[in-house]
Amino acid sequence: MFQRLRGTRDFYPEEMAARNKVFKIIRETAERYGFVEIVSPAIESFDLIAKKSGEDIREEIYAFEDKGGRTICLIPEFTPSVSRMIANRQKELGKPLKWFSIPRHWRYERPQSGRLREFYQLNVDIFGSKSPKADTEVLSVGISIMLNLGLKDFLFHISNREFLHGLLQEYNVSDIHEAFRIIDKREKIPEEEFIESLLNCGIKNYDEILDVLDSVNIDNIENFKGRNKMMDRSIGNLLDISRYLDYYGFREYCTLDLSVVRGLAYYTGMVFEVYDKKKEMRSLFGGGRYDDLVESFGGEPTPAVGFGMGDVVLELMMKKEGVWPEEKTYIDYYIANIGDVDRHVLSIARKLRDKGYKVTFDLVDRNLSNQLKYADKINAKNVIFVGEKELKEGKILIKNMETGEQKKVEIGKI
Amino acid sequence: MFQRLRGTRDFYPEEMAARNKVFKIIRETAERYGFVEIVSPAIESFDLIAKKSGEDIREEIYAFEDKGGRTICLIPEFTPSVSRMIANRQKELGKPLKWFSIPRHWRYERPQSGRLREFYQLNVDIFGSKSPKADTEVLSVGISIMLNLGLKDFLFHISNREFLHGLLQEYNVSDIHEAFRIIDKREKIPEEEFIESLLNCGIKNYDEILDVLDSVNIDNIENFKGRNKMMDRSIGNLLDISRYLDYYGFREYCTLDLSVVRGLAYYTGMVFEVYDKKKEMRSLFGGGRYDDLVESFGGEPTPAVGFGMGDVVLELMMKKEGVWPEEKTYIDYYIANIGDVDRHVLSIARKLRDKGYKVTFDLVDRNLSNQLKYADKINAKNVIFVGEKELKEGKILIKNMETGEQKKVEIGKI
Repeated sequence: MFQRLRGTRDFYPEEMAARNKVFKIIRETAERYGFVEIVSPAIESFDLIAKKSGEDIREEIYAFEDKGGRTICLIPEFTPSVSRMIANRQKELGKPLKWFSIPRHWRYERPQSGRLREFYQLNVDIFGSKSPKADTEVLSVGISIMLNLGLKDFLFHISNREFLHGLLQEYNVSDIHEAFRIIDKREKIPEEEFIESLLNCGIKNYDEILDVLDSVNIDNIENFKGRNKMMDRSIGNLLDISRYLDYYGFREYCTLDLSVVRGLAYYTGMVFEVYDKKKEMRSLFGGGRYDDLVESFGGEPTPAVGFGMGDVVLELMMKKEGVWPEEKTYIDYYIANIGDVDRHVLSIARKLRDKGYKVTFDLVDRNLSNQLKYADKINAKNVIFVGEKELKEGKILIKNMETGEQKKVEIGKI
Repeated sequence: MFQRLRGTRDFYPEEMAARNKVFKIIRETAERYGFVEIVSPAIESFDLIAKKSGEDIREEIYAFEDKGGRTICLIPEFTPSVSRMIANRQKELGKPLKWFSIPRHWRYERPQSGRLREFYQLNVDIFGSKSPKADTEVLSVGISIMLNLGLKDFLFHISNREFLHGLLQEYNVSDIHEAFRIIDKREKIPEEEFIESLLNCGIKNYDEILDVLDSVNIDNIENFKGRNKMMDRSIGNLLDISRYLDYYGFREYCTLDLSVVRGLAYYTGMVFEVYDKKKEMRSLFGGGRYDDLVESFGGEPTPAVGFGMGDVVLELMMKKEGVWPEEKTYIDYYIANIGDVDRHVLSIARKLRDKGYKVTFDLVDRNLSNQLKYADKINAKNVIFVGEKELKEGKILIKNMETGEQKKVEIGKI
């Protein structure tokens, strides 16, 4: 028998119903924040993807030659496509843009808990604003989505790359990106290995640097002002974000955490990672500011801030908290027939459907008992009994399957 | 500058808004008919696709080797995937199943009007019923979708393959599938070429056969009964469908047209094609009964009937009839600031969003005039003016941008 490919999923009706509910909440929340939905193609030229991530990404994605000899790929992430879309129409688009999308992405990875080869990802971005208000909007829409999905056990760990960048410069660290990469791994590797990596990177005063990262909080961060421009700028940004979060009423969901750097090289300012409160699980999702990327794709200089949230980890998280929606489909009316009453069944179905109800009826000549079993299987809220006897009185019987309540209704009055 | 691949589309917010409206109508209509939504992976093993269409399909699709050496492909159609899904869970699924899906499909074809390399396709199918009522449900949901989308210029041309099959047997035609293929092309090729093909296929009495096809209508079809079992069965099926369509109130959108055979080999009973009333354009979409396919994919014998409707032709058709939705996004409230009022702007935004409104505000420190230009660009229905002066009175000003009406509101009463 044929099987689906490893790392892909089939969504049968019940699973799909739950997923549609989750995506609906996400869509509606993003729209309340003034974000508008876009979609890009699932396939792009490999050059576009490699432009951001380098040629080596080829090993981790689905890339192949098409019949015209072009190397194309299934998109592993959204940023290159959306940057291309902005560059392609930059003259017409009125900035700032608040865009979201829930595309599928594909990565050739070993499937494991929380990681699949084909997945959906919510991408939310603001293009064309450098303001900490834009940073705050991105954080706030993320928080609102979590709350509207019923999640409670989460905390946004907020940082700004420029703080660490400035701090590393204070200590004359030359390979800043390598230092970022190492510090990003701090909690994922043994301490000895971590310190060895720092030393190899030429960071002798690593203990002083780590001390600063660990001791800074939102109440004392101003004490670190006056060292250099990058640190000052990041402190200003973080204090602004904190203030805006306060005005907005979302500060309780956030904490300042300068140990957050995020591995990807392209972030330029505020960055964040979302963890469970006790920080027992790995990061749920994250994002940040990337002011140089759109320009690198051929667009005008366009500051940007956003995040990506995959559906696989989201589902795990929601199931852990017991807020994943019930996986159930339903129908408003099942019309059961008793005898030769097709004409009436079909005309009642038509009337109810025209009114917007979900309606079905027997398609396999079942007897009444088996019709009722099927009605139960497809979760019919009501069953309408259309029988020759009642029809002579011009009536049908409607039974509410939840309450058991029955009533006879004149056929003309449906 | 990077460009999207040929034959693919970007959906910018306005285009996406229109498309979302169209897909919403399609979804809601399918659900009223008791269909439930499913999704399958975008990638499948090539064997699955070739099982239905043969190895030659490789030339027309995106097929490639993955890193594990498996030949996989981007799905060019839905039937193989959905047949696999049914075979994979046949024990649990309570038939009949009424399923729909709006996946993306990919075909490596020369892009042209109505044909792209990446497109969406609505797939609607009933599995597990041989009844002409199921045939009628599929036709009816198709008609309802067209009507609910605002389309008027269409006619469903309904046939049954068994009629022609039986008729060809009467004339001792041996290669039935080749004969189907030729007759399917009748209106697409010059008459001489058509007749030559028929003669090559060993159909000497082609004129008698074509005479029958052309002269049969719903009122005289019973006269053709009694020739052979296949013809009798198809006549019974078509008369039943006609009767059910009558009960349902949709007969006016349908015509009996035995010249419809559909090219694909796997149809086994009722088939249909939808044309504009004058039949000036090529077929808009079509479908039919395919009772043997699921079994060929390793499932239990499962009669099936359904159709696929691509979004590219649908959009052309809707634009031609002037019923494609307006391509416009909007926002309920734009909050304009005058002076240092961030605290209030953010807290008003929070309140309105919590109530479900779409709200945004300035993220780029614009002056009032430029804020209003932006509000207009993003189609704000209302603008709230938050100014230091009014705030001293505890008030804000709300302007309805459609009517021009303004009112002062106490800030606590928003």
